[in-house]
Parts: sequence; structure tokens; C-alpha cells
Amino acid sequence: MSKKYVYLFSEGNAKQKNLLGGKGANLAEMTNLGMPVPQGFTVTTEACIQYYTDGERISPAIEAEIFEYLAKIEKINGKSFGDPANPFLVSVRSGARASMPGMMDTILNLGLNDVTVEGLARKTGNPRFAYDSYRRFIQMYSDVVMEQDKARFEKILTEAKAKKNIRDDKDLSADDLREIIVTFKKLYKEHVKADFPQDPKVQLLGAIKAVFRSWNNPRAITYRRLNDIPGDWGTAVNVQAMVFGNMGDTSGTGVAFTRNPATGEKALFGEYLMNAQGEDVVAGIRTPMKISELEKQNPALYKQFTEIADKLEKHYRDMQDMEFTIEGGKLYMLQTRNGKRTAQAALKIAVDLVGEGMIDEKEAVLKVEPKQLDALLHPQFDPKALKTAKPAAKGLPASPGAAAGIICFTAERAVELHEQKKKVVLVRQETSPEDIEGMNVAQGILTARGGMTSHAAVVARGMGTCCVAGCSDIHVDDEAGKLVLNGKPYKEGDPISLDGSTGNVYLELIPTVEAGTGGDYGTLMAWADKYRKLKVRTNADTPKDAAQAVKFGAEGIGLTRTEHMFFEADRIPAVREMIVSKNEAERRAALAKLLPMQRKDFIGIYEAMGERPVTIRFLDPPLHEFLPHTDEDIAALAKEMKLSFGELKATVESLHEFNPMMGHRGCRLAVSYPEIAEMQTQAVIEAALEVNKKKGYNIVPEIMIPLVCELKELNFVRDIVARTADAIIAKSGAPMKYMVGTMIEMPRACVVADKLAKTAEFFSFGTNDLTQMAFGFSRDDAGKFLADYYAKKIFESDPFARVDQEGVGELMKMAVEKGKSTRPDIKLGICGEHGGDPSTVEFCHNIGLNYVSCSPFRVPIARLAAAQANLKNPR
Amino acid sequence: MSKKYVYLFSEGNAKQKNLLGGKGANLAEMTNLGMPVPQGFTVTTEACIQYYTDGERISPAIEAEIFEYLAKIEKINGKSFGDPANPFLVSVRSGARASMPGMMDTILNLGLNDVTVEGLARKTGNPRFAYDSYRRFIQMYSDVVMEQDKARFEKILTEAKAKKNIRDDKDLSADDLREIIVTFKKLYKEHVKADFPQDPKVQLLGAIKAVFRSWNNPRAITYRRLNDIPGDWGTAVNVQAMVFGNMGDTSGTGVAFTRNPATGEKALFGEYLMNAQGEDVVAGIRTPMKISELEKQNPALYKQFTEIADKLEKHYRDMQDMEFTIEGGKLYMLQTRNGKRTAQAALKIAVDLVGEGMIDEKEAVLKVEPKQLDALLHPQFDPKALKTAKPAAKGLPASPGAAAGIICFTAERAVELHEQKKKVVLVRQETSPEDIEGMNVAQGILTARGGMTSHAAVVARGMGTCCVAGCSDIHVDDEAGKLVLNGKPYKEGDPISLDGSTGNVYLELIPTVEAGTGGDYGTLMAWADKYRKLKVRTNADTPKDAAQAVKFGAEGIGLTRTEHMFFEADRIPAVREMIVSKNEAERRAALAKLLPMQRKDFIGIYEAMGERPVTIRFLDPPLHEFLPHTDEDIAALAKEMKLSFGELKATVESLHEFNPMMGHRGCRLAVSYPEIAEMQTQAVIEAALEVNKKKGYNIVPEIMIPLVCELKELNFVRDIVARTADAIIAKSGAPMKYMVGTMIEMPRACVVADKLAKTAEFFSFGTNDLTQMAFGFSRDDAGKFLADYYAKKIFESDPFARVDQEGVGELMKMAVEKGKSTRPDIKLGICGEHGGDPSTVEFCHNIGLNYVSCSPFRVPIARLAAAQANLKNPR
Repeated sequence: MSKKYVYLFSEGNAKQKNLLGGKGANLAEMTNLGMPVPQGFTVTTEACIQYYTDGERISPAIEAEIFEYLAKIEKINGKSFGDPANPFLVSVRSGARASMPGMMDTILNLGLNDVTVEGLARKTGNPRFAYDSYRRFIQMYSDVVMEQDKARFEKILTEAKAKKNIRDDKDLSADDLREIIVTFKKLYKEHVKADFPQDPKVQLLGAIKAVFRSWNNPRAITYRRLNDIPGDWGTAVNVQAMVFGNMGDTSGTGVAFTRNPATGEKALFGEYLMNAQGEDVVAGIRTPMKISELEKQNPALYKQFTEIADKLEKHYRDMQDMEFTIEGGKLYMLQTRNGKRTAQAALKIAVDLVGEGMIDEKEAVLKVEPKQLDALLHPQFDPKALKTAKPAAKGLPASPGAAAGIICFTAERAVELHEQKKKVVLVRQETSPEDIEGMNVAQGILTARGGMTSHAAVVARGMGTCCVAGCSDIHVDDEAGKLVLNGKPYKEGDPISLDGSTGNVYLELIPTVEAGTGGDYGTLMAWADKYRKLKVRTNADTPKDAAQAVKFGAEGIGLTRTEHMFFEADRIPAVREMIVSKNEAERRAALAKLLPMQRKDFIGIYEAMGERPVTIRFLDPPLHEFLPHTDEDIAALAKEMKLSFGELKATVESLHEFNPMMGHRGCRLAVSYPEIAEMQTQAVIEAALEVNKKKGYNIVPEIMIPLVCELKELNFVRDIVARTADAIIAKSGAPMKYMVGTMIEMPRACVVADKLAKTAEFFSFGTNDLTQMAFGFSRDDAGKFLADYYAKKIFESDPFARVDQEGVGELMKMAVEKGKSTRPDIKLGICGEHGGDPSTVEFCHNIGLNYVSCSPFRVPIARLAAAQANLKNPR
Repeated sequence: MSKKYVYLFSEGNAKQKNLLGGKGANLAEMTNLGMPVPQGFTVTTEACIQYYTDGERISPAIEAEIFEYLAKIEKINGKSFGDPANPFLVSVRSGARASMPGMMDTILNLGLNDVTVEGLARKTGNPRFAYDSYRRFIQMYSDVVMEQDKARFEKILTEAKAKKNIRDDKDLSADDLREIIVTFKKLYKEHVKADFPQDPKVQLLGAIKAVFRSWNNPRAITYRRLNDIPGDWGTAVNVQAMVFGNMGDTSGTGVAFTRNPATGEKALFGEYLMNAQGEDVVAGIRTPMKISELEKQNPALYKQFTEIADKLEKHYRDMQDMEFTIEGGKLYMLQTRNGKRTAQAALKIAVDLVGEGMIDEKEAVLKVEPKQLDALLHPQFDPKALKTAKPAAKGLPASPGAAAGIICFTAERAVELHEQKKKVVLVRQETSPEDIEGMNVAQGILTARGGMTSHAAVVARGMGTCCVAGCSDIHVDDEAGKLVLNGKPYKEGDPISLDGSTGNVYLELIPTVEAGTGGDYGTLMAWADKYRKLKVRTNADTPKDAAQAVKFGAEGIGLTRTEHMFFEADRIPAVREMIVSKNEAERRAALAKLLPMQRKDFIGIYEAMGERPVTIRFLDPPLHEFLPHTDEDIAALAKEMKLSFGELKATVESLHEFNPMMGHRGCRLAVSYPEIAEMQTQAVIEAALEVNKKKGYNIVPEIMIPLVCELKELNFVRDIVARTADAIIAKSGAPMKYMVGTMIEMPRACVVADKLAKTAEFFSFGTNDLTQMAFGFSRDDAGKFLADYYAKKIFESDPFARVDQEGVGELMKMAVEKGKSTRPDIKLGICGEHGGDPSTVEFCHNIGLNYVSCSPFRVPIARLAAAQANLKNPR
């Protein structure tokens, strides 16, 4: 046999997580450290992969190896499988490389059968305990291994209790349980068409297979997708001698952390229960004791445990999350791992460990999960108030944070109520660009329709506003001004609270608290900034967003979407006037009205950013987005604009597009209507000159042309920009530099990037569109089938959340290489939604971009992710 | 000076077309052959490119060189610019690499001014001729060089004639013309704000610049786009001594071909006029004489001319198109070039030249323009009848051929009338997939809306049916059952004829003749087949199309679109039933109804194709295409399907897509509904087994999965296919091979082609979608802005007609290389609309594809283009 598929705990170590899984590797490590671990073996992740390669079967060779190791641990533990006098019982537990708590299956008490159960009863002198263990095993085995309906077994249990008129399982006597076992086995035979297996080896193989299989159960697949865990890793299986915390008053079980996982405070933190099994601690039937109580109850054992805990933390150089069992006064360690922790705790622990000399700054930076910072930066519900609150509905957690206020159904009302100093939550069937002002003043946004990348979700994340999207339980009736939930209507002014991190909707007011970004945050982020190479910019369309982003450490703006300004109430009439213009002269007249407003916008942004670089993208969306589409709305607007209905309707129809995503937008608008680009250039340049003059700054505006896929197209627009800008600058008498660059968001742009770089002074990857075009599916439509793609394991992560490195990433790499081949110092960035995703930030670092740009609230995440990327792969 | 920008005719030769342009190179060649050519010089195409590089100015160095050569030709011709006694006059003509007849500008009689005009009058003894020449020169110069409105000059001429009460220019006397010249010069001064230039050198530079400029006039840009001529070639300028055919009865001018350009017959063919200038031959004021008349009129000169013609044809080894002038009894050759010819003539000449031993088969194959074959393969109007017919309207020539029949407004009526043996022309506002059966039986299709790539155009070309699309002059009112043209209504049964090659619409019946594919066609195509490496397949969805394509030489089917069958009247109810199914069981029930029909379709196609390979693509369009969209239609269908309106409406709404091109289609359908792929596999395999059994064939079905962009996605569908197919084949007891391959139509598929090739046994490039996704614009929407892109010289050709080699082509190359790296013998083809475009065929040959697949009527074009590709670049 060339490959070893099974390891004794004593043969492995903590470094072998990929092979043994996290749990297995740590059990091995603890064994090697001489800690009291019930001995067993680990079947490797490679065996799991082989199981799938072999068509979901365990090969004879691996089977033989498992039994070889079973014999070894029988010897170590001094017990034998099926021995009536001293039966060997094991637990069979999953353990993947990354912790996936609760996602896969576990089987306890394996080895029990009609004979060994009697042995266990005799040996423990506790027949009730023995029968209860066997009953549980049959139930667990039937469910997990044989995939039988759990409810049938529960029903028998319930009936037995009803017959005896008792309520609690623990009031069932040994005899009751013996009878139940008989019924369970009958039920098993009826459905499985075979007797309940009496051979522990058969039980063992069944259990191992079941754990392998559970790697691909739907909840595990979903968990992996949400946590970026590849589907081809597989899980290891740990087979370990059972120890029982429920064998009497000198037995017990517990979990403990070396530091407080909520606050990070340095003190042993945990709970335990005497005469109990693991699940009882969690189940909440009995109230567990604080771990500090153990000191009083059993000082020697407590001392032993604290010494182990201390040793483990020092050994792993991180806060540990441990499980232990006391069997007959003897301590056993069942698990240790780096403990999950809140963002606040993560920061405190990382900073404290540096202070304690246990780790250095770099290790500290690597210890904090960037995504966790999100929770720190948004307001949160008061944890106490939250405990008593009851969610009324649940939607998608589209943008984190907590919001509480009164219900409001239109953007206009939101603005009005906001002016009356009311806190409002905007509730819409779905949002559209026209709602932008209402969204901006709202505490939170709730939509009945739309996914994680719907308009509401994207805009809310951009604003850092809490949003729950796609809450399909509610129905919003705009006209009647109500939302209906479970048949009950709620109207404007009714209280509502949203939790953007869980998707929970409450129909009451829950008080919120501003999350503090205390000293530890500042310390850690300063270290992160020290160790990163990638700059972090922000996507911001308003001075308010820009200022927020600077507060979060943004070093510039990577994307200002000028069209967001076009949607505002005071501009949209001029925009519409421009659209219905019959010729260039009329268009220029309308644009002249927009000019002072755009210029003012840019002045505000420049002032908010100081001298930091600002990239302004020219008008991008198709023009029909600025017009209404229903006959009613068209009629109303026609009246307002003093046009005939037919005239405006004809314009709307002429602008209709079959695939708006692939229509007349981006630089194609500037090609058709150069005067739009002229006006925008004028606004950008005049604003910069004015701020330079007023503040003594030395701004270098960066003008970005969207949707380019051909050099001649870029040159056409660049020529307009240069002609306009040069004339204004010359006239001003104040010399000023400016840059012209392009979005790289069409696949063809990647292919001809060497040519584009002849003109473009910078590239900014628009990975939203690049993803759409590379895959050929639109973000708005993909929701319908992506669920099938996840369920069928075709996609493991959402390509709109995390850059698809294999496809889209290859196109990006190509563009980087080609761009640099023409212009070695070309400035390279990314400004898609992906810019705030840590794995994408790492990828951008690795392919040599200069900066990432993301929404203001993601700036700290990107800073930390950039530092981690550079620590892992210095450049 | 490092570069030479000006060449005497005696310095060049025919090989220098790129540098001297076609006209210049041939004038040089004739000079070298000792033929009587008025001597002059050529300013090179490089000078034109330099002119644009220098910001549309002629550099001092090039100007100096022009004057240096001017001095040389003054000497050669024995005359001087501005010499009052013997003035040197020149013509200034454009001449690009490729002939672009009439697209650019010409200036004659240059060198005339107030002084030299008197010299010319004296020298010729013909003052009227001299003044008329000067008058014409002023007019031409003002128009071409100074861009003054021609109409103003024409008005003066008209007024002068009116004043004298004469109708014809030639009735104006020398004095009249002298007065007109004065008025012309006044008009010139008034608008140009300068005197008409008297210095011939100033005139010359102005004229040369004007010719350079005319390279980029709108009609030249359009012509280049339609004829695949790159915009960066530039034009040369030929400055040549004037000779006059209008100096009296011993002067004359004419054009002649060495063979008949209409039929190819070997006999001098042409016309001439004595005492006339070039334009008079064309203008039709006087009836020109046949060239054979010249023999009677001037046998010596005729002999000289025939000898020259013969020598030129032998020299160029091709039929020549020549222009000549006789000045005072002396013959001058002004131009020779390979003559344009009809398809029929092209074939006859090519075959004859081989017979005459002048060229070999390979040269013959290279001599025929593949696109020309199109005209040969469709029915044509009887040329005699066409002469008297008057077009009533004009649309886009969307699919060639001629159609005559009665008007009919709906697909259903077309089918009914067809069954009554009537010949119908289907007239629609625009067509939709539901019209397919009506389109299939129609002689021709006329639409009021839609472009060259509209549904009507694409489907008609596929069927080889004549189509005129986007005829915006007509308005079609389906409900009232009429079409309105110029306010006049036409109804069902009225006669109509369409010319799909010109876009002309006639409201009368014009008799048509089947175009013969005679012996020369057969001979040449046999040679083409001998010299090509690329296989040619066809896109065919019906046995009828398949049989037609085989007749045209198709070697297999590269694309059968199964969805086209789904739209037929007997299937669509089952398709709709499948779509509204609430679960898999209902869907399977509906699919079971479709199965026998699909199987029958495939049996028909296999039988039509003999044992030739057949590639069948699985269901591609989004499901909403099979459902109605208006409330009225939904209500009607709901009734028919015994559903509530609300239920069906909800289904239609749930299937709505923002960007249908990027929606739930292609293999994404098979991922969501594997049972569709199962049914299609069953139909494909069972049909092949049945035909194999019946005919003793050995068919190897090729199953093609559309829209793939990820290996796991392909594997998922491949597994369904394999599972289904293998079971059926095993059960049949008749072993049969089959292949599974993928479309390569998403940019990501190109990037991961090495991975896809692990599973895919063949790739077929879907260049329509690949073009859409690479550029990020949809074919349906791009029409709105592509016109701007052509006008602004950003695009030179339609990327949906001709593969964009720089972008899309690079992605294809990448996919070819990556695919072969994994599977060296992978079969590679193309099945997009581009497959019948000669330049694309050449590209496909060069990147190493195995076959192209195109609509049946393009098969001969592709065969010839493939042969030419291999002759140019053998592999």
C-alpha cells in the first residue's frame, strides 16, 4: 500500500490539518503533548476524496487499514469491540480542515449491541444508563447512517412516555428503555428490511461512510459557499474511545475558552455540568455551572485543567476553545481549537497576545478575520433588548448593521419625515434608482423582493446602511400605504427594526448602540497599514460618503459614479430634457443646466478628500433608466415637461432595449453624444481648479471612461476630454495635470489591454460587468438559477461576491500583463463590488494591482485583507 | 530624405499596389510595357498616412518632393504649368490599394487659370472648349477642394440657360461661358473670402489634399466597411497629364473589357464615343458606339488597341477593364485593372483561363470572389422584365434572391395559401419565432422593422429565402390586414415582388428564373474542394434544409437547433405544458409527449444526411420565449391550457428576465431541469439507432451542450447524457458510439478551455454570443449605436458579420490552444452566423479549426473561401 489513510492520534500532529482535519490534528497534538486524550485514530481527508473517486465506496484496502488500526486502539484502550465483559465503545466524528460546526454528522456509543449493552450495564452498575445509550445509538445510527426518518423514533418515545404518563425522557426506567429498544429495532427492520447490525465492525464502516457522505449534505455545501471552503477538501473521520460524563457524580463534561470570546478578556471562560453528556450542556435542560465553580468542587482537577488550558494557549499561540469530559473523577480532553470570537474579542486578543510577547505584530494582523470588522463598524442592537425581542419575519442579511424607526413606504415621505427629525425605515416592494434620496436618509431599508445583489442591497452596502432584502413573507402595497405580514396590515408610522446581519425583521423598536472602534482596533489597523502594499480607496458619490470613507482610512476615491448625481430630484428634469432633445443644440442647452450642479458635486468631493486622488467615472447607465416606463408615469412627466404623451412615449420606446446591460451605455453614450463627455470634463476640471485655488491643493483629477472595448473608442472619448480640459486649463492660467484612464470591464478590453494602455494612464477593473460578460449571465437574472448551481455543486461561491479567479481572474491577469507590457508604470485598480471582499483583495495583491476600491464601510476590511495578503505573499 | 513619397510612372510597377494604389501601379506597369500612357507621377499611400499623422497637412518635405516631380513631368510632357502658350494641364485622381469606384474625388483640367485658358483656346483653336473646361474646373475645384455647395454653381448655369432660353449646356456659346466664369469666380470669392487661385501649384496642392481627405468621406467609409477594406491603408494620388477626347472628330474616349463582364465570353467588350470626354460615355446624353465599330472607323487604331488589350490580359493573366482616350487620332491608355464581373462571368473566365493555359487551377480558385457565388444560388428576376419594373420602396437587402407572389400578413395564412398552391410573400411589421412555419413556405419575407441581423434576416438567410428587412417606408397593420405605402393600402392577395440582393420592393409580379449552377460552377468548385483542408458543414434544423445543404456540398451538420422544432404548432402546446409544470413529474409527463416528435425530427435529419456527421445542440433559449407576453394572449392561452389567467400570468412574470440574452438558458436549463436533457438525449440516440438499423448506417451522433462556461457544469450535463445514452444503447443490443461536446460562446469558456477539453470531445465556436459577450453589447441593441461607431471610424466592419479577429479571434485562438493542450485531437468547428463569411473562414483555417458550419446557401461560399485560405496559407 503506497498511501497511508489511517493515523493513530499518536502518529499525527497539529501541522497535518489538511490530512487529518482540524479536530484530528489537534487530538494528535494534544496526545503528543502528553495530555489526557481518549485514544483513537483518524481516517484521513484523502480517504474521503478516494471514497468519492471510487463512486462512494470504501475500497477494500482502506477498509483493511481501518480494521488494522481498530485493533491497535483496542489494544491501547485495553478493551475489545463486542467484548461482553468490557465492550469497547467509540465515537465517530467528522473533522474537516476548517471548522464547520454542526454541519456534518456524529455518531456516539458505537459498539453497543444486544450483548454489549448488558456488559456496559454490568460494568457501570447502571442498567438505565446502558439502555439509554443503546437507545440513543439505534436512533442516531438509523438517522445518520441509514437515513431513516427521525420522527418515527421520536414518536415511539413520545408514545411510551404518554402511556406511562411522564413528561421527561429521564423518567423512563431501565425496563421502559428496554422495551423501547425492542420497538426501535422492529421499526428499523420494517423500513431498512434488515436487522439492526449487531457487528460493531459493520456499525463502524457504516458510520465512517455516513460521515464522508455528510460532507456533501446541503447545509454543508451552503456553509462552505458562505465561508469560502472548497468542496474538494473532504472531511477526515475521528474514531475515538468513548468516555462518559454521565456515569455518576464524579463524572461530568464541559466546554471552556482560554479567554472570553465575547470581550477578549484574559480569563478562563466556560461552563460544565456534572453527571452529564456533551449535548446536555448545550441543550439547556439543566443550568450549567461556570467553569470557576469547578475550582471549589474539585481543586486538583481544576488545577490540572487550567494548566492544560494554559499550555494549549501558549502552544497554539491563540485563544483555545476546549471540550473536556470527566469520567469517574478523571479528566479527558476531547477537543481543542482556536476559538471563534467576536470582532471586539478578536482585536483585543490579537493586541494582548502581542503585549504578552506571545506573537508579533504580523501574526496579530493575520489573526483577525477581515470580514469580522464589518460588525464593528455598524450600529448594533443593544444585546439585552435583543434577548426579549421576537423576529416577525426574516429576509436576506443584505447590508449589516441595526436599524430601528418608523415604517415609511416612499422615498419622498422618507425625506419629509427625516426633515421632521424622525427615524425612518424605508419599506419597499423593491427599490429603484429614484429612491436614492429616501434610502440615503433612512436608518434601514427593507424590501420584499430582490437578492443579495439587488439594487437595494448594493446601494445600501455602498452607503453603509442596514438592509434586509427579499423578505418574501411581507407584501408591500405602495398605493394603499401598507405592508401585510401574515394577513395583518402595518402602516406608516408603525415601529420596525431590522437586523442587517441576520436578516431578522422586528415589528417593534429595539434600541441600538453605536459600535465603538476602540484602542485595540486602532492599534491593529495601524499594524495592518504598516504591512500592506496595496492602497485602499473607496467608491463614493457624495461628500458625505467620501468623508465617512476617509474616517475609515480610505486613501482616495476609486470610483465616483456621476450618474448617481443625475438621479437627484433637482437634476433629473435637466437630464430628461437632455434625453428628449431633438438635436445637439437642444442637448447642449440641457447640459448647460447640469454643468453647475455637477461642478458643485465635484467641488464637494474634492474638498472632502483633501488632496487624495479622486477617480470620476463618466455617465454609465443607458438613458432609458432616467425615464418612466408606465403609460401613467409617462403621461404625468409629459405634462410636466410640456410634451405630448405621444412624443415622450416615442422617446421611451425608441430607447427601449432588449438587454439593457448590453445596450447603449458607458462610453457608447459619449461616442453618440460627445457633448455629454464635454460637459462632464468641464465640471471635473473647473471644480478641481477652483478647489486648488481656494485650498492651495494640487489635485490631479482622474477621469475614467467606462465600458471601453477598443482603442479607437477610448481615443475618441479621450480626445474630447483632452480638447475640453486643455482649453479650460490653458484659459485658467493655473497649470494642472489630469489623467485619463479606462474601466476594464468587457472581456475584449482584457484581450486588447496592451493597445488600450497606449492611451489609458490607468486601468480600473469593473469586476461586476466583467463577471457578467465572462460568464454570460446578468446579475439581475442569475439569481434564478444560481441556487441550482450551488445545490448541484457546480459553483461553490457567488461569483458576484468573490472574484472567480479561474476565469475572470485569468482575464484580469491577462489585462495586467498586457497593460504593463505597453506602459510599465500604468496605475492598476479595481472598483467593482468585489473590491471589499478579502479573498479578492488577496488576489488583487497577488496579481500586482496598485489599489482596491470599495464602499466606505468595507475600507477597514480591505486594509486588513491587504495586509494579510502581503504578509502571506510579500511583494 | 529617407523615404520616397513620389514616383514617376516610369519608376513603379504593378507589384507596388500597396504603395502606389491600384491605378498608379497599373499606370506604371503600362508605362514600362511601352504603352501609350500620358505621363505623370503618383503620390504614395504612405504620403496619405503621413498627411493624417501630421494633423491633415502636407509636410514641407513632401510638398518639395511633389514639386520636384512636377518639374520632371513638365519636362517629359514638354509643357509647363501656367505657360500661356502651351499650358500643362493635369488630372488629379485617387487610387487606393483596392478599387473603390466613385467613392473618392477626382479633379480634371487642373492648371487652367485666366491666362492659360486663353492659351488653350488658341492652341486648340476651340475657345468654347477651353472656356467650358475652365468653367468645369472652377466648379469641380470649388466643390471638391473648397467644399462649396455645388448647387449654387448649378443655379448660375441654369439661370444662364434660362436667360438664353436654351436647355442644353452644349448650346452655351464661348461668350456665355466666359460670362459664367466671371460669375463663378465672384461666387467663389463671396463664399471662400479669397480669389479663385490662379497659381497652378496652389491648385495642385489643394487638389492633392482634397483627394487625401476624400479617403475619409462618409461614402468611402461605408464602402470600406461593406468591402472589408481597412481604414488605415490610405489612398495614393495620381497626377497625370490631361489628354482630351473632346478636341474634335479625331478625338474620342471609351472603356473596354477584354472579355464580357456579364457572361465571361471571350471577346472584346466595350463602348466609345468620338469627340467626347470620359463622363459623356457614362452620362447617356449621346448613345455610345460598340467597341467593334471602332474597327470600321479607324482600323489601325483599333488594331493597336486590341493588341494592347491582348497584351495586358496576358500580362495580368486576367480579364482587364481599360479606359482610353484618343486625342487627335492618337491612342492613350488611362487605366487598366482586373475587371469587375458577375458571378457567372467570374466562373467562366476562371475556367477558360485554365483551358487557355494562362493560369493553373489554384490561380483560378483564387480568382473568384466567394461572396459572389451567393447571387448564383438564389432565383433571380428575369432581367428583361426587371428593366421595365419600378421599385415602390426600398429596404435592407437582408437575404439574397428574388421572390414574387401575393401579399399575406400572417404565418397561418401563409401556410393555408401555400397549401392552396399559391406563391406567397409574407409581409410583417417584424417576425418572431412563431412565424417560422409561414416563413418556411413563403417565397420571400418583407418586414417593416429590423436590421440585417433581425430575426427575419437571420432566419431567411438560414433558409436561403429572399428577404427584404427594415423597409421603413411601409407600415404593416396586422389586425386590419393591410400594408400602407405612401398612404395607399395594399391587402392580402395583391401582387408583390422582392429583390433580396438590392432591397427593392415592387408592387407587381415580376417573373423569376432559377439561377443555373452550370458546368463552370461545377468545375471550379471541384478544384476548390481539391485544394481546401477545412471541412464545410451546414446549420440545418429540418430535413429539407439538410437536403438542400447536401446539394450545395455540405459535409455534415454543424448545428441543429432543437428549439426551432419546439416552436412548431404541433409541439408548442407540450412545450408550454412543460414550462408551467409545478414539479418534475408533471414536467416529465409533458416531455414524454415531445419525445416521439423530437425523435422523428432527428430520424428525418439523419436520413437526409446519409452517414455524414450531425451535431445536435440541446435546448438553448430561455423558456419565456415559448410563452405569450401580453395580457390578452396570456388570457387566450390560459383558456386553451385550462389554467387560470392569474396562474399563467404568474408563470410568465416569474420567467421575466431583465437581460434575456444573459439569463436562464442554454445548459443552465439542463442544470435546473435535467429531465429536458434526458428527453433530448433519448430522442437523439433512439433516432440514430433506428436509422442505423433501417439503413445499415454507422451514425455517430454528436451532442452539443450550449452556453457552457465551467467544467463542472459541462460534466453535470454530460453525466445526464451518458447515463441516458448508455442505458439505451446497452438495451438496444446494437453498439453505437456518440460524442459529447460543447459550444464555446462565453468568454470564460475560452479561458478555461483546457479544463473543458477534459470532457468535451469537440468544441464548436458560437461566435454570435462570443461577440456579444466579448464586446458587451447585444446584437438586438447594438444597431442603435453601431452607426455612430462606423461614422466615427471606431469600427470598420460589423462584428456580427465578420469575426473581430483582434478581440474575439484572440479568445478563439486561446481556446484552440488550450483545448488542444488537453486533447490534441479535439474536433474544432464554428457554427455562428460568421461561418459563411469568407474572411472568417480564412481566419478559421489559419487558427486550425477542422470545419466551419453555415447556412445551406452559404456552403458553396465557405467551400471556395476555405480553398482560397489554404492556397494562401497551406497547412
